[in-house]
Amino acid sequence: MDKVVIGVIGFGTVGTGVVKILVQNRDILEKRAGVPVILKKIADLDTSSDRGVPLAPGVLTAEVSEILEDPEITVVVEAIGGENPAKSFIEKALRAGKNVVTSNKEVIAKHGAFFTSLARETGCSILYEAAVGGGIPVLHAIRNSLAGNRIEKVFGIVNGTTNYILTKMTASGADFSETLKEAQALGYAEADPKNDVEGYDVAYKLAILASLAFRCEVDYSRIYREGITGITAEDIAAARQFGYTIKMLAVGINHGNRIELHVHPVMIENGHPLATVNDVFNAIYIRGDSLGDAMFYGRGAGELPTASAVVGDIMNLAFRRQSGFIQDSEFGLEQLPVIPMDECSTSFFIRCSVDDKPGVLADISRVFANHGISILSIQQIGAHEDTATITTITHPVTEAQMKAALGETGKLRSVRNICSVIRVGLEE
Amino acid sequence: MDKVVIGVIGFGTVGTGVVKILVQNRDILEKRAGVPVILKKIADLDTSSDRGVPLAPGVLTAEVSEILEDPEITVVVEAIGGENPAKSFIEKALRAGKNVVTSNKEVIAKHGAFFTSLARETGCSILYEAAVGGGIPVLHAIRNSLAGNRIEKVFGIVNGTTNYILTKMTASGADFSETLKEAQALGYAEADPKNDVEGYDVAYKLAILASLAFRCEVDYSRIYREGITGITAEDIAAARQFGYTIKMLAVGINHGNRIELHVHPVMIENGHPLATVNDVFNAIYIRGDSLGDAMFYGRGAGELPTASAVVGDIMNLAFRRQSGFIQDSEFGLEQLPVIPMDECSTSFFIRCSVDDKPGVLADISRVFANHGISILSIQQIGAHEDTATITTITHPVTEAQMKAALGETGKLRSVRNICSVIRVGLEE
Repeated sequence: MDKVVIGVIGFGTVGTGVVKILVQNRDILEKRAGVPVILKKIADLDTSSDRGVPLAPGVLTAEVSEILEDPEITVVVEAIGGENPAKSFIEKALRAGKNVVTSNKEVIAKHGAFFTSLARETGCSILYEAAVGGGIPVLHAIRNSLAGNRIEKVFGIVNGTTNYILTKMTASGADFSETLKEAQALGYAEADPKNDVEGYDVAYKLAILASLAFRCEVDYSRIYREGITGITAEDIAAARQFGYTIKMLAVGINHGNRIELHVHPVMIENGHPLATVNDVFNAIYIRGDSLGDAMFYGRGAGELPTASAVVGDIMNLAFRRQSGFIQDSEFGLEQLPVIPMDECSTSFFIRCSVDDKPGVLADISRVFANHGISILSIQQIGAHEDTATITTITHPVTEAQMKAALGETGKLRSVRNICSVIRVGLEE
Repeated sequence: MDKVVIGVIGFGTVGTGVVKILVQNRDILEKRAGVPVILKKIADLDTSSDRGVPLAPGVLTAEVSEILEDPEITVVVEAIGGENPAKSFIEKALRAGKNVVTSNKEVIAKHGAFFTSLARETGCSILYEAAVGGGIPVLHAIRNSLAGNRIEKVFGIVNGTTNYILTKMTASGADFSETLKEAQALGYAEADPKNDVEGYDVAYKLAILASLAFRCEVDYSRIYREGITGITAEDIAAARQFGYTIKMLAVGINHGNRIELHVHPVMIENGHPLATVNDVFNAIYIRGDSLGDAMFYGRGAGELPTASAVVGDIMNLAFRRQSGFIQDSEFGLEQLPVIPMDECSTSFFIRCSVDDKPGVLADISRVFANHGISILSIQQIGAHEDTATITTITHPVTEAQMKAALGETGKLRSVRNICSVIRVGLEE
């Protein structure tokens, strides 16, 4: 390829960031790529809003076909987000032999394996660094520099909205709903926050991370998912008391022939590097068989950080220009079975509200013992009128054991309510 | 290339790690590379010691020429370290059109520009991910995924020995020399620790980081360098009191047409991600114009982490096999002048031992004021018999201003000794 000719579909936040970098840093991009790097077309239904970046006449169009059907365009940036119509645009571009760069986690989590095999057929590439961790170049590292490793674990703080909310709750002692409202007022959470706070976004990203880290095809719908809507100020305070910080995590563990994939809040030991990742920052923690532990930290969202990753993918394509584009990794080589959540094992934090009378702590301890659950710590605190709170942290047990024990605990006459059940630790 | 044939020069710690990964993970390497990945020869003068890895007869040789003159070998791993004879081996390999992968920071810091231009002439590549940050794939990220960025700053904790010593001093309150002895006993510091504790190793790594991050040629000898041998338990305690942690840092700042390069201890704000990087871990903090802030964290040394990076480079070469090898970045495109240290600006922590009598604090304040230095905080603490300690933290000033002020302070009749001068903060 003697030049890189780019069409950008979608001129919203990410698209605007990409265009800004392509325009403002064109000098360094061309110097580094060694060939012209040309932004030829931008397609968006809104052709009139000012995005604060100067464009030559004719660059902005409302017609996607002007990109998808232009034989000169070799790199299509898909920056509209969501499943449809992004899927059909990506598919058309790949069928036309164009390389695709996207920041769209949903469409890659759901259709990545299909796109990759289609790209291989038509001799082009699909890259999506910006889909996980914004500007953090973790996917490229997994595919390339860490390729000599069997990756054993991937833990990710990959959603800025939930990390912002949990950070603020930790700092202020406020409750979830109040903090969500603040985050919405600041633009860190959407009016309908479900996608973030219930963990869908994290699950998309885990599907992508795990597929590359464990070199397997991941069925997104098999990922166990719990959000942060049930986390209370009391949980945050209890976590602090025990030396933990609550974070929303994507958890992927490779057991060789089976994998664990789950998304939920975790109480992380304060000494762990993930515990200090605050506000809208993201971080991905990886353990490889030779690498040991590593962490990639940075801005997980935002116009320019996300665009940095998109442009990085374009540059990685440009660096390979002499070879034609090759696909540097495989999505979905193997179908590794996902271990049912009931069989997964972890420590738990449980907070119950109970009658403030003698014997309740003993009753709960007995139920746990009957289910083979070892207790690390059990405390009765803060009696309030005739109510007390019992907090328990267990040694690792299976989810099934815990479910059974909690079912029985909930039936104890003196237990009024099982307020919180939160997983603890990263099973180092 | 239809296969990757490797010769490893040096069968010490790093070489052994590389061989272990090539042998033990050969299945995944070949699957991912799509071609055979063959370890053909290992050259080391010691051909008898057991390195704990099974080798076919004839693989281990004492003759480097069996690697350098074998036309089938396309990738030479240089793992002997030090300037000589590594330089001549690398040069011979490149002249023979072989790709070189090395973990040798000294030889790259001193001769990287020469090697890169030689590699370009002979159509091959030299890669050295393992030379900075051990297993952390930061150099590849800078060259590739971050290629759309103008990188503004690079701060690195890139020496495990000094980070281990400072971490232990922080935890235990012990003094430098005592902690060094412990580190030596544990194998974390060498019998002659100069290369680590006086900052030579950090300066090599900074030269390499800066050359790639700022795309320029770096004259290693222009890097200002101060070690950690002067850091005392009192400094650590004072840092804690002010909310700082002392870390040994490589500092690179790009001012556009000039760059700052210096290596010395820094008091880092405790909230900064670098402040929590402990023990032998390394981390490199990068600010890019679109990326914003990012950090890469992991094991900076050790047999397998370092070998992970070497094998990652081999895999990156293998992924480009269809194109012949191309050089994906330039070492030394521009000669950016290094700003003289006297003109660099930072905040300072100063600890003086003084006569315990009225007016000393006022005298010191007056000297600083006369040199245009604003004081953020000045405290007189811990009188001991007739001696007191004055600690001062300044607002940012130039090194020249500080030197002049300290010269005059030292002459004050009531100042017995200027015990410590430590730079403060990362000028966010």
